[in-house]
Formats: sequence, C-alpha cells, structure tokens
Amino acid sequence: MDSQPSTLAEVATPCFLVDIDRLRCNAKRMLDTCRKFQVDLRHHTKTHKTVEAADIMTDGSRRKIACSTLPECEMYADNGYEDILLAYSITADKIPRCSQLTNRLSEFHVMLSGAEGVTCLREGASRLADGKHWSVFVEIDTGLGRSGFSWDSEAVVQAAREVDLDPHMKVTGVYTHCGHSYAHVTPEQRAEDQKVLVARITDVVQRLKSAGVEVTVVGTGSTPTCSLPDPVLSTLNEFHPGNYVFYDYQQLLLGACGEGDVACCVATRVVSCRPELGTLLVDCGFMALSCDGRKQRGDDFCFIMGHPYLQLTSIYQELGKITVKQGKSINFNDFPVGTMLFIYPFHSCATAAMHDRYIIHSGQKVVGVWKPVKGW
Amino acid sequence: MDSQPSTLAEVATPCFLVDIDRLRCNAKRMLDTCRKFQVDLRHHTKTHKTVEAADIMTDGSRRKIACSTLPECEMYADNGYEDILLAYSITADKIPRCSQLTNRLSEFHVMLSGAEGVTCLREGASRLADGKHWSVFVEIDTGLGRSGFSWDSEAVVQAAREVDLDPHMKVTGVYTHCGHSYAHVTPEQRAEDQKVLVARITDVVQRLKSAGVEVTVVGTGSTPTCSLPDPVLSTLNEFHPGNYVFYDYQQLLLGACGEGDVACCVATRVVSCRPELGTLLVDCGFMALSCDGRKQRGDDFCFIMGHPYLQLTSIYQELGKITVKQGKSINFNDFPVGTMLFIYPFHSCATAAMHDRYIIHSGQKVVGVWKPVKGW
Repeated sequence: MDSQPSTLAEVATPCFLVDIDRLRCNAKRMLDTCRKFQVDLRHHTKTHKTVEAADIMTDGSRRKIACSTLPECEMYADNGYEDILLAYSITADKIPRCSQLTNRLSEFHVMLSGAEGVTCLREGASRLADGKHWSVFVEIDTGLGRSGFSWDSEAVVQAAREVDLDPHMKVTGVYTHCGHSYAHVTPEQRAEDQKVLVARITDVVQRLKSAGVEVTVVGTGSTPTCSLPDPVLSTLNEFHPGNYVFYDYQQLLLGACGEGDVACCVATRVVSCRPELGTLLVDCGFMALSCDGRKQRGDDFCFIMGHPYLQLTSIYQELGKITVKQGKSINFNDFPVGTMLFIYPFHSCATAAMHDRYIIHSGQKVVGVWKPVKGW
Repeated sequence: MDSQPSTLAEVATPCFLVDIDRLRCNAKRMLDTCRKFQVDLRHHTKTHKTVEAADIMTDGSRRKIACSTLPECEMYADNGYEDILLAYSITADKIPRCSQLTNRLSEFHVMLSGAEGVTCLREGASRLADGKHWSVFVEIDTGLGRSGFSWDSEAVVQAAREVDLDPHMKVTGVYTHCGHSYAHVTPEQRAEDQKVLVARITDVVQRLKSAGVEVTVVGTGSTPTCSLPDPVLSTLNEFHPGNYVFYDYQQLLLGACGEGDVACCVATRVVSCRPELGTLLVDCGFMALSCDGRKQRGDDFCFIMGHPYLQLTSIYQELGKITVKQGKSINFNDFPVGTMLFIYPFHSCATAAMHDRYIIHSGQKVVGVWKPVKGW
C-alpha cells in the first residue's frame, strides 16, 4: 500500500485490527460489573499495553492499573497514570527501576510472592526518597500451584509481619490469581471454584489481621472469573482482569464472551489458491498470529469471521494454510488471490504481542493506529 | 539493571542471547558446505533479520540473500545489499514496494507461486523504470503440498512461458522448499527424499527448457537439508537455508546440528522457588520464548543448559514453570531466587521474533546489541 489506509479494504496484511466499538463495550461492561459488585477495577494492561486502551478502560481516570512489565509501568507513569501495581514477583534485579517508580508516583505497588522478596525490598529501601516506602501486594496461591505464598502456609503471615514491622514497607493488599477459571467447567463448578477462592483468601486476610497486619485491598483477577462472577466475589474489593479488552476465541469457548464481543483479529489476504489440494494460503503465519493455544495440527485454535466451514490447519512463519472442515464443501472460486479474511485468535494477549502497531477501526473505517510498549 | 551490561551475569532478563562465536562457526560451516557442493549460498534472513548477521553469513559480500518480508528487503537495500530475493508469493498489494526495490537495485527478484502472479506483475510493470524488468523465481511444489506450482503441472510451464514472452519480465530461477526435511527420518530416507526432490526440480527445468525458457538458477532451502546434504544436491546451484544462523532444539533433535552449535538462547532468572510443589518459576514466559513447537503440557520443547534433569513444564505470559524430570531428583537449594538459567528454544525463528534486540556475547562478555527489523 502506498499511503496510510482509510478503510479496512486498504490495510497492508497481515495486521492486527482492533474494533474500537467492541472494545468500548467490553470496557463499559466490566466497569458496570465492578460497580454492581462494589469492587474497584484495576485492569491488567498486559493484553493491550497501550495508553489509548487504558484511558478507555479506566474511564479517563488514569488511576488503578496492574502491569506485567516495568516498561508498561514506566509508560503509564510517563503519561500521568497513578496507582500502578507491578503485578510480578519482586526480585533484586527490579529494585532500581521499582524504586524510581515509587519515588515519582504517589502510589506504586510491588508484588511479594515469596519470603526472598522481603530481603530484596529491605536491601533496596536505601534507594527510596525521604518519606517514601514500599507499598506491597502479597501474592497468594489459593490452589492454582503457580506463584505466590500458599494460602494455608505460615510463611505468608510471617512475611507480611516482617513487611509491616519494617518502617520502609507496608502491606497494602493481597492478590490471588484465579487461573482455574481457564478450565472448561460447568457454571456450577465455576461458582464453587469462586466460593473456595474467596474462602481461602478471606482466611488469609483474617490470619493476617490476627497477626496485626491490616489489609486494605483484597483482589483477584482473570477474565473468565470477572466476566462470569458469582455474587460471592462482592466480598473482595478489587478485580484485575486484562484479556477482556479484546477477548478472543479461548474466552468465547469458555463462555466469557460472545462472538460479537471479540474486539481484535488479524486481517490477512489469500496469497495462493490451490483447489487441487483443497487449500488456500494466506499471509498470516505464526509471526502474525502466534502459536499460543495451538495444540496440534488441525485443531481448533482460531475462527475465521463469516466462514464457519474454513479452518486454519497449519501455520508457518509467514503463511497460513486454510482447509475446509471435514464433510463440508466450499467453492474455491469464491476466494481468489487477494481476498481478505479476518482471523480471530485463540489468545489475544499472545497475538497482540506479535505486532508493533494495532490498526483501530470503527466498522470499515480506519480511525487510528496504536503502538503498544514492548520488552522488559 | 542501571547501566548497559558488560557480562552475561548483568543482563536484564528475560533477553535473547546470541553466541557470536557459535554463529560465526555456523556461518563458516555452511559457506564451506556450499563451496564443497559448488552451489551459491543465498541464505534466508527470516531467522535473524539483522544486517550484522547477514554480513557474517555473506562473508562480507553483501550479495545474494532471500528475505521473508518487504521490510527485510528494504533494510538490506538501505545497507548496500544487492541480489535480494523476496522469497514470498508476489501479489498485487506488494507490487508498489517491489517495483521500488527493482528500480533501485541492480538485482531484485520476486517469487511467482501461481498463475495469478503473472497478471499482477504484468499490471505492475508500468511502475518499473526504463530498462528495468521483473526478475522472477518460480516456486515449485515438489511434493510438500504448501505453496508453489505443482512440479508435474502444465500450469508451471505455461506461466513461465508467459513471463518470458513478456518484455517486462524474465524467469531467473526456480526454487523449491524442501520442508519434508523437518520430518524425523533415517539418514537413508533423507537421502532418498533429496534424490526425489532433485529429480522433480530437474524435470521441471528440462520441461521449461523444452518450452524455450532457460533457467539460470535452481535452488532449494531448509536448514536440515543444507546441513545434511546428499551429494545429489550438487546438481542444483543455490542453497537457501536460514535457521542455521542460530540452530535450535528442533534442529538438534533432527541431527542437523550438535548441542554446541546452538547459538541462541533466552537468559532467564529464577523469580520464585517452591520446593513444596517441586517447581521453580522463571521470568521466561511465552512473551520471551514463544509457544511455537509446543505440542502439549510437559512435552519436550526446549532444553536448559547444564541442567538435563530440569524441564520447562508450562509457560504463561511472563512466567515459566520448571520441574524436575520424572524419576530424577534435584536440590532446590541450588536454585535460589536470582539464579540465571539459559533456555535453548525449540524454534529459534519464533523465539528471535519475540525480541526487539539481541544481546551478543563471546563467552561471558557482552560484545554488542543487534536490532532486528520487524513487521511487514
């Protein structure tokens, strides 16, 4: 393409498209859910990593976000954001940049996921300006088995006490990731999982209180949980979902969103048509789509808008091979070279990460370009 | 980290490391192979996408490369490279930039993978400067079933004739991708596959010649094939491998390289140690490693240098979960938080793509930073 595109038909492919109208709906729906549950929304920026989406998701407040990397935190700080949580285990190598963020912001929080973190915060306190302290979220493993202190451990109480006894640190909140919600379960099981999660995190909060540590914030995340919350979650006071900005095929399969809510896709064009083999080749390979979510050849890891009988069977670096689903037939003459297709990814966090810019559209009209922050 | 690293121990993690000494050996070995087989090396730049690596791989000539994207072609053209092939099906949307490359370089080649390509080249010829023509490589499918003209089709002869009869185009070469070589086969089967490939591409060349189309270049690619070539390949005159610049775990499993040849890895640090669960968490998730090559949980999709009993069992966005292989035991006290590990990826093309910069090292010393070109 010689010039900047003004309509979807003109975009260079492959590219990452964001439907701004769907994104606004997704943002508003989650804000409404949080109001209904009387919890604060601290959305996770890891999916989109842009100021533009965060402005919409914070409803213009530019307050209260969770980030997965230091460059995210720094970009938001540079853009006037406040109340930023680096939702990642604090370690010694992150102390210099975290101390700078603590010094320049009125509220910046680090996450403590193990006893070693207390030591590195204590040793790093000399970098803090006068009157500044480390604000700490304690990460609790309520059964997922990934990171954080085991909810039923003594270690969590001990670490929280050590933090609160140190004049340069304070426990602000506890957080537990509810990654269980990515399992395909019945609505009844989902509700039960959420009840167990709340019971366990509440137990931790009470044990901390008994030990003299008062916790202000009790939060949990995950897009499926916050999209399909059980009333029990109103016991907490912060939700940290991230993926809902775009949603994706995975969330659709989980029932966390409808097809009309998926706000991102990869635009691609047919580059070769081989009816003798029953295949179309498109300019969307793993460089544009990412392999994340793909289990094996031919499995169900994305969907192609408007063409339920087509499936992406293989992806190579810059090529995708599309075939027709078994038992279905299609006229390959309907897909000449140059035909544009829109592929909805399995995991939008991974797909967005493959792109240095997002093309923003409203209907067929291109309305902007957003550039996500990258790296570590 | 506050300042630029001078040794590996100081690098911020996760990051993509390139062992410059191994890379130089890999480059030299492939140049030697090509000399021995009396073929030209036209290495594929898709794996590394940097000027620095291409300078080494072309032995300083800055001539004869294959690229997967237009930004690669343009970056190399900007840096004085000549004889560049865009090894990707030509389509109408690529004509404007390809005509610019044809006009500014003495040798730029496009790839014709189907009959529709002839039409778009014909229609795009008006963009060529006086005295310029489209130099065409015809892509042949010798049985892989991906892109290109079927080797035994009439369509390939017809398209090549149409190209050569047009005063604005000329067939320069034929190319066939030998992706079969990524199947795990015996050495005997590999040799047999290469014989079949050569027989088929030779058949195409002879049929083109009978139709009046003289082909100067006959090439094939793939790193396993060019790393493990059968003497029959000396019949051809160009090799187009790409991945050998770095190699990876996949190539190691295929026998295309040894462990000491893998020239890239992701440096990561332990961020959490949970001996009660038998897991270490590291700051290498799919954002740093890519999921490409991963089939299912716990499978064998990378290796951790110096620790044959450790395996990466799960990867999340910014976290990797390491466990001990079944039947083995390890002392978790040997891996405190902050311990640096080096993960060799399954597919280095995919892993390199996750990074905006590569940290170049010689032994423990950091000797440079390379920035690959991105996008489309």
